[in-house]
Amino acid sequence: MSSGHAPLVVSVPDEEYAAQLADLDGVDTLVWDMREPHPRVAELDLVVRPYLHPVDLAARLQGADSLKVVQIQSAGYEDVLPQVPAGVTLCNAAGVHDASTAELAVGLAIAALRGIPEFVRHQDEHVWQDWSYRRSLADSRVVLLGYGQIGRAIASRLRPFEVSLTAVASRPRPGDDLVDWVHGIEELPDLVGQADVLIIIVPLTPTTRGLVNADLLARMPDGALVVNVARGGIVDTDALVAACETGRLQAALDVTDPEPLPADHPLWATPGVLITPHVGGATRAMRPRSIALVRHQIEALRDGRPLANVVS
Amino acid sequence: MSSGHAPLVVSVPDEEYAAQLADLDGVDTLVWDMREPHPRVAELDLVVRPYLHPVDLAARLQGADSLKVVQIQSAGYEDVLPQVPAGVTLCNAAGVHDASTAELAVGLAIAALRGIPEFVRHQDEHVWQDWSYRRSLADSRVVLLGYGQIGRAIASRLRPFEVSLTAVASRPRPGDDLVDWVHGIEELPDLVGQADVLIIIVPLTPTTRGLVNADLLARMPDGALVVNVARGGIVDTDALVAACETGRLQAALDVTDPEPLPADHPLWATPGVLITPHVGGATRAMRPRSIALVRHQIEALRDGRPLANVVS
Repeated sequence: MSSGHAPLVVSVPDEEYAAQLADLDGVDTLVWDMREPHPRVAELDLVVRPYLHPVDLAARLQGADSLKVVQIQSAGYEDVLPQVPAGVTLCNAAGVHDASTAELAVGLAIAALRGIPEFVRHQDEHVWQDWSYRRSLADSRVVLLGYGQIGRAIASRLRPFEVSLTAVASRPRPGDDLVDWVHGIEELPDLVGQADVLIIIVPLTPTTRGLVNADLLARMPDGALVVNVARGGIVDTDALVAACETGRLQAALDVTDPEPLPADHPLWATPGVLITPHVGGATRAMRPRSIALVRHQIEALRDGRPLANVVS
Repeated sequence: MSSGHAPLVVSVPDEEYAAQLADLDGVDTLVWDMREPHPRVAELDLVVRPYLHPVDLAARLQGADSLKVVQIQSAGYEDVLPQVPAGVTLCNAAGVHDASTAELAVGLAIAALRGIPEFVRHQDEHVWQDWSYRRSLADSRVVLLGYGQIGRAIASRLRPFEVSLTAVASRPRPGDDLVDWVHGIEELPDLVGQADVLIIIVPLTPTTRGLVNADLLARMPDGALVVNVARGGIVDTDALVAACETGRLQAALDVTDPEPLPADHPLWATPGVLITPHVGGATRAMRPRSIALVRHQIEALRDGRPLANVVS
């Protein structure tokens, strides 16, 4: 297809990506985990940023004078955006983590409601004990804060669980096959008053930072559960600790603020709080979906077609 | 409706049942938790057995010469059956626990695959750590052993999770809106060879006792997960311990054999095993569904219509 042209020079984070993309014509693929500078940085057209370890992107991309696209592997991009060189297109990984993050949201909700963390601790003490009626996801009133791609993936998974589901997004709009109506965020304070479970999956923006604050938490019913699979900064951590410490609310958090959570942070030991260390996307479901996206992006750039997931 | 007739005498396990059923005409409702004998046992037409504590049914029902129906609150009835007086109809609680048990099955699968038990232990040590790709429910090949009412409730919940789902029941038959085909149990040994997750929800019968034995477990792929929300006796516990101890398989069990699990049983500390103490049905979702069933049964008996859920 591109015979006669110089090949597109692409870096991918590991050998598995390279092997899976080896069939692409007109592409010169380098493996670069971005831990160290790369001697061929000046030739790169497209860089795929690694997922699981931190990278000083601005430093690593110095001298990347041919660079056209930075492809990241997370949906959130608020941290990366300032590090992308001027004139370079940033693409996120919207879609890659939907299944994985949505299933964790549902899993965290069920685990917290049904007492799985407590049973793990009982197991470590060899104690078989439960003579109480736990809460259930069934019959729960769930407010889903965020109704983008992952929000809808959560909604589709929640639907068969006999919940009543209310979706909230930045602007009110008619619903879809999953919800009748998407409420505007200005209704959130009223809606959480009827929420047994609040699931957070909005992007972190100046508008959403600290959105779930002491006032909003105070409006939630006694015993309600806050599930956060978005970004820690959307929740006021101190306010959440205060609300859970008294036993009034419960929380299941895949993300925290600060993150990673320091060892001496009170959130670790707050009763009714379940913490997973930002693992929403890090599953085996990610790889095939990520490779499909990277393949699409390489082909698009090579063939002059539009990139997917352009965020700036 | 039954004015002029003697009222139907019914016992329910607690005041909440009595209050919720107080509007029924022609019914004399007693509260009896069956911990002690009841002075009016001879008058009883229908007994609702309590759910969460053991009852010596045969002893308690001595002299219950008018008794027509024992209504239990579990789906499984293998233990109760021999204790029911001759000539008395036994009804189980099929349907009451579907939502609750099905959501626990899905929750246990996600919790085990995504490492929630490990993160609970990390949380207790204030450790934020995860640099590995976990397994996901997404893309998993799930074999559902048991395709009765709860089996179908599990299937409907699993469907949006991007799994491939294979249902197995006692006899092969065409599927429904959830699965194309229901495989016969004789195919199980072949089917588990492709199972990333095996979810068990068959009743305990002479045929199913010990069905998931060393041979069947040996056929499962490395790293596969066994989820049991049915009865402990369907799995050979020693064989499961042996398979998990080496790290080859994982298990998430709401039921065990023996049950309750004695404090010195090796299953408690077997790596990769998550145990919850038979809490599949014990949630707040149970009460409204149970009351609706009991109401139906009382009205049926009073009005001479067919009872639901007759098992013997």
